[in-house]
Amino acid sequence: MARGGTRPEGRSFEALPVAVDAMGGDRAPAEIVKGARQVSELGGIDVVLVGQPGRLGDIGGLALIEASEVIGMDDDPGQGVRRKKDSSLVRAAEAVRDGKAMAMVSAGNTGAAMASALFRMGRLRGVIRPAIATPIPNVERSWPTVLIDSGANAECTGAMLEQFAAMGAAFSRKRYGLERPRLGLLSIGEERSKGTPLVKEAHTLLESSAEPSGFDFVGNVEGRDFFDAGVDVIVTDGFTGNVALKTLEGSLRFLIDALGDILGRPEVRETADALYPHLLPLATALDPEHTGGAMLLGVDGVCVISHGSSSSVAVVNAVTVAHDLAVAGLVEAVAASVKQA
Amino acid sequence: MARGGTRPEGRSFEALPVAVDAMGGDRAPAEIVKGARQVSELGGIDVVLVGQPGRLGDIGGLALIEASEVIGMDDDPGQGVRRKKDSSLVRAAEAVRDGKAMAMVSAGNTGAAMASALFRMGRLRGVIRPAIATPIPNVERSWPTVLIDSGANAECTGAMLEQFAAMGAAFSRKRYGLERPRLGLLSIGEERSKGTPLVKEAHTLLESSAEPSGFDFVGNVEGRDFFDAGVDVIVTDGFTGNVALKTLEGSLRFLIDALGDILGRPEVRETADALYPHLLPLATALDPEHTGGAMLLGVDGVCVISHGSSSSVAVVNAVTVAHDLAVAGLVEAVAASVKQA
Repeated sequence: MARGGTRPEGRSFEALPVAVDAMGGDRAPAEIVKGARQVSELGGIDVVLVGQPGRLGDIGGLALIEASEVIGMDDDPGQGVRRKKDSSLVRAAEAVRDGKAMAMVSAGNTGAAMASALFRMGRLRGVIRPAIATPIPNVERSWPTVLIDSGANAECTGAMLEQFAAMGAAFSRKRYGLERPRLGLLSIGEERSKGTPLVKEAHTLLESSAEPSGFDFVGNVEGRDFFDAGVDVIVTDGFTGNVALKTLEGSLRFLIDALGDILGRPEVRETADALYPHLLPLATALDPEHTGGAMLLGVDGVCVISHGSSSSVAVVNAVTVAHDLAVAGLVEAVAASVKQA
Repeated sequence: MARGGTRPEGRSFEALPVAVDAMGGDRAPAEIVKGARQVSELGGIDVVLVGQPGRLGDIGGLALIEASEVIGMDDDPGQGVRRKKDSSLVRAAEAVRDGKAMAMVSAGNTGAAMASALFRMGRLRGVIRPAIATPIPNVERSWPTVLIDSGANAECTGAMLEQFAAMGAAFSRKRYGLERPRLGLLSIGEERSKGTPLVKEAHTLLESSAEPSGFDFVGNVEGRDFFDAGVDVIVTDGFTGNVALKTLEGSLRFLIDALGDILGRPEVRETADALYPHLLPLATALDPEHTGGAMLLGVDGVCVISHGSSSSVAVVNAVTVAHDLAVAGLVEAVAASVKQA
């Protein structure tokens, strides 16, 4: 594992910087560099930018790993990683592999970030396929609900879902301090007879792996349970998870935009102004900028994938989460959880 | 087909009543009977209630088909229909089969309504599996987006998705007057290479069936496109469709409730009062009471499945939609569309 690897500069793991892909994201490089500078100025977390030096502007004294290429948002992930060996994403993953960074953060092409992490950091022993864990805000309590897999694997087996559960449970323990997270299986009815053969198989597997993996299996949950306070981790295949996540985000976005249009009308503007302070906590809670991004679990290193639209605020949060989880031993916890399952 | 069947009372199809399951739904029978009476009093649509006479209260002179049993919301659909042969759901479906009603409406157990319609009315010739079409409000335009299948078939083949497309297109033509509906395939990326093997197979099939089935295939769509004005029909398997629909409904419900809590605070009540008239059109547009319910397509008769929480308003809308579609020849249109595909 990277943690035990060479340390060319002789620095302890805790002193390593977080590698930030300066080129990835709709607002890169400006907002990414801004966020990296901000988090570094806050102190306590070291950052190394990865990207094309000529395009980054003033990096305020941050360290830089030069990378001459960029994998774009529309590039094919597999091809991008194979062909652009000197891209910021590939170099960021290599920095983690080589013990030059404790974690990587990117707001770029999700598939390419996954592929870079998988090909360069490698898979943890025993992991069938890495999966993406995405935190979904839950305003009823102080921690979000984790959806795994939210899009890494369109096709899954029952054994993969069982591993996603073990990895998701380890993540929510490390990230949110939940000793025994309550874990649900996404299906189309609460009864165990509901769903596809894959879901029914996974249901049986999760019943027996709950104890060794250290979670409470609450059984099947449904699409309406994403905002329920009774479940901490929701497990599903990457196809269903991605559709559900985009449906959820799209539905909230639609309604927020529709409300914004109404509150922006001249005849209600005064009313709206009085209301904003009350709406702000809800808007903040739902803002993906504040969740710290999604996490690729099952690879030998910490890889945080931030929203494509990430601003500097999102970068600050993502880097902080990446740092905290790397130091807390997320990778070791995921490896142990998979081993036990 | 039922339309060509016996007419014991010698009435023309257009003069037949709509059979309303008086026992189905969280607020049955009171709200169901109330809605049935209201739609009948509006004139132009005849209604026959189906249920237990002793429990219906004042039915205001409406006709009644007696049924001694009730399939509950929690009953197993298949078992319920097999064991409760004198249930309101089974009798309503038989009324359509026997030419005593032009359509059936139920707010009860969705699975049991499907099973009743399938077992009693029968499948249309050539239909592999009936599917549920659910209208999703789209505030950008005057007609909703139709999701098919929203939960009838957890497991699907490419050929089934191809038929769902043909049936969904026929439905949106008859229901919303769209001559060439724009149809999308639900996946996890716009590129045809994205998704499961099922989705990739369906993509190819839909390209070639678009012309004979009379729709424009816009390609893959994603979970965030449910509120997009550029697609009229979204095709998917019943597992993904059900997860997406419940996620969508759950997300909107969560945000509406959260806003309701804020607007209900004493310190913003005055502000809220000024805002309500502006919010009302949006709330009305999103209210499932107004969409007329979901529709089971592929069976030999019109079967509208209304929300479990249906009030009398939802019943009025569902009966009106059922009547209009039966008269407009929905079943014949679906049969023809499947034949051509």
